[in-house]
Amino acid sequence: MSTGERRRVTIADIAEEAGVSVPTVSRVLNGRMDVAPETRGRVEELLQRHEYRRRGTPKTGQASLIDLVFTDLDSPWAVEIIRGVEDVAHDFGVGVVVSAVHSRATAERRWWQNVQARASDGVILVASHLHPKLEAQLRRHPPTVVVDPAGVPTADLPTIGTTNWSGGLSATEHLIGLGHRRIAVISGPPRLQCSRARLDGYRTALDAAGIEPDENMIYQGDFYHESGFAGGQKFLALDEPPTAIFASSDQMAYGVYEAVRQQGLRVPADISIVGFDDLPEARWSSPPLTTVRQPLAEMGMLAARTLLRLVRGEEVETLRFELATQLMIRESTAPPRGA
Amino acid sequence: MSTGERRRVTIADIAEEAGVSVPTVSRVLNGRMDVAPETRGRVEELLQRHEYRRRGTPKTGQASLIDLVFTDLDSPWAVEIIRGVEDVAHDFGVGVVVSAVHSRATAERRWWQNVQARASDGVILVASHLHPKLEAQLRRHPPTVVVDPAGVPTADLPTIGTTNWSGGLSATEHLIGLGHRRIAVISGPPRLQCSRARLDGYRTALDAAGIEPDENMIYQGDFYHESGFAGGQKFLALDEPPTAIFASSDQMAYGVYEAVRQQGLRVPADISIVGFDDLPEARWSSPPLTTVRQPLAEMGMLAARTLLRLVRGEEVETLRFELATQLMIRESTAPPRGA
Repeated sequence: MSTGERRRVTIADIAEEAGVSVPTVSRVLNGRMDVAPETRGRVEELLQRHEYRRRGTPKTGQASLIDLVFTDLDSPWAVEIIRGVEDVAHDFGVGVVVSAVHSRATAERRWWQNVQARASDGVILVASHLHPKLEAQLRRHPPTVVVDPAGVPTADLPTIGTTNWSGGLSATEHLIGLGHRRIAVISGPPRLQCSRARLDGYRTALDAAGIEPDENMIYQGDFYHESGFAGGQKFLALDEPPTAIFASSDQMAYGVYEAVRQQGLRVPADISIVGFDDLPEARWSSPPLTTVRQPLAEMGMLAARTLLRLVRGEEVETLRFELATQLMIRESTAPPRGA
Repeated sequence: MSTGERRRVTIADIAEEAGVSVPTVSRVLNGRMDVAPETRGRVEELLQRHEYRRRGTPKTGQASLIDLVFTDLDSPWAVEIIRGVEDVAHDFGVGVVVSAVHSRATAERRWWQNVQARASDGVILVASHLHPKLEAQLRRHPPTVVVDPAGVPTADLPTIGTTNWSGGLSATEHLIGLGHRRIAVISGPPRLQCSRARLDGYRTALDAAGIEPDENMIYQGDFYHESGFAGGQKFLALDEPPTAIFASSDQMAYGVYEAVRQQGLRVPADISIVGFDDLPEARWSSPPLTTVRQPLAEMGMLAARTLLRLVRGEEVETLRFELATQLMIRESTAPPRGA
């Protein structure tokens, strides 16, 4: 702990030096009995030697800090997640330091130095593609919880996700229920689990309804607007175009809206569209978008609660939590023409 | 300074006890010569007595914190401003604690306790309707800078705004340049200066073009979607409806889109629409929205730079900065039919 005397000593520092886990140190701090006496003695000695002072509870007027980390802050998800995390943190008197790793390697190093210097009590990481070395460093940091709307596989850390497969299923079932049979899908990048899960939900719904799969009805997008537009154009140019499209992100759904508009067609009279995300704009699009809601704010809240439990040294029951998606039916879907 | 021994001592505490301003303490810390010797002595004595340790620069591995405060985090502006502030703070190794005051009075008190306990070096306040008592407390806090997209009058604090009047002018001039003469406006809440400035810009553009003002062409909205929808419906129901509408927020422009769609009409073939904000969704709306860009991220960056200068004890040249708006011409505007 070479810089231990200059910067604030954290629970993680103590744990490392004592050769025990962070929760063990927390248990000692919380006066819990389930710590071997010898371990407790070693930890308490280090706490004293380094003059560890708890980044306290609201009672003592001393606020704790947690870090909330994004790859970049231009994700449309960011503000919803911040809102959920802040809501819980506020009640606990905990400050939320929001940062973005940014993409350049030097920026990553700088960001990591900043996180360490802050000596926050824990980290909520919004899953993304971190440099593997940085990800390994984060695993050794004080408690970390991952919020994972995208389905980036992250080993060994408690992760809050959403039920992507069920979401894809319910979107497609809704279209089938309206009488559609030629239903296309615009999927996300295949490297993300959430893309695969949403696509599998789509396939399962078709299969359950006895609809033959058709590879012409699948377009691989990347969740961004342009790929939704390109997918929409491709589908509308088919000899036998689909009567409905499930775009597996809201942004891609807006891209399809624009392709439909440029053809002089109408949503939903000529074609039905379902999205995935339910960011606030979905209500303001024209027509308002039928979409699968990811409960991003609630995911942020659960992440904060889980992290604060870990900081207190409590155990969590499972490494993977999934919150349910919900289909929000608005005006972009209708029965197909002639149905 | 009753709790001074328990929580971290800040520059503001020292300033208060010494009976000097925060910049004066900063000047002492920065070794500047423009401090009276007697004042310097008193400040240095207090710094020593309270064992003040600077929330340091990156060099020492100790990060500073600043607070970035919103009324509520559901403003569509929030993430852009966070992005700008974080971008600058990142480079300086400064952590950004994002919080929302929330609306209830007890929440305000709680939030204020949290801010104090964190002992951050400064506050960026995104202007809003704080309880007057809380606002007075904030003025006594270490350096505070206001980001003010809305034009809430805030006395005595450096404020970063945007050129709302010029924005309203350029939006209207654009429509006049396309050949429109019957141009309606949906304004924002009159209690906000930005609403009045945008409306005045509209009026001035009409006047300069020799177009007679018409009170039927003005609808008072509140910046939210529903009021844009209501305004659009009202204008379309007129015997002689406008051929163009300037909605003074993007959200209200989307409300007009929906009113136009429900009438079976088309943007821009039947009616042109201009918004104000240029949030990211504007590019994804269908058709993509012509709108006046508020440089929110840049406003956040300037706020962070200004705050960090104040923290270092530097003077700022003026209390009011305005960054220029810019008209973004996309596909929601076209010449009127028959022009």
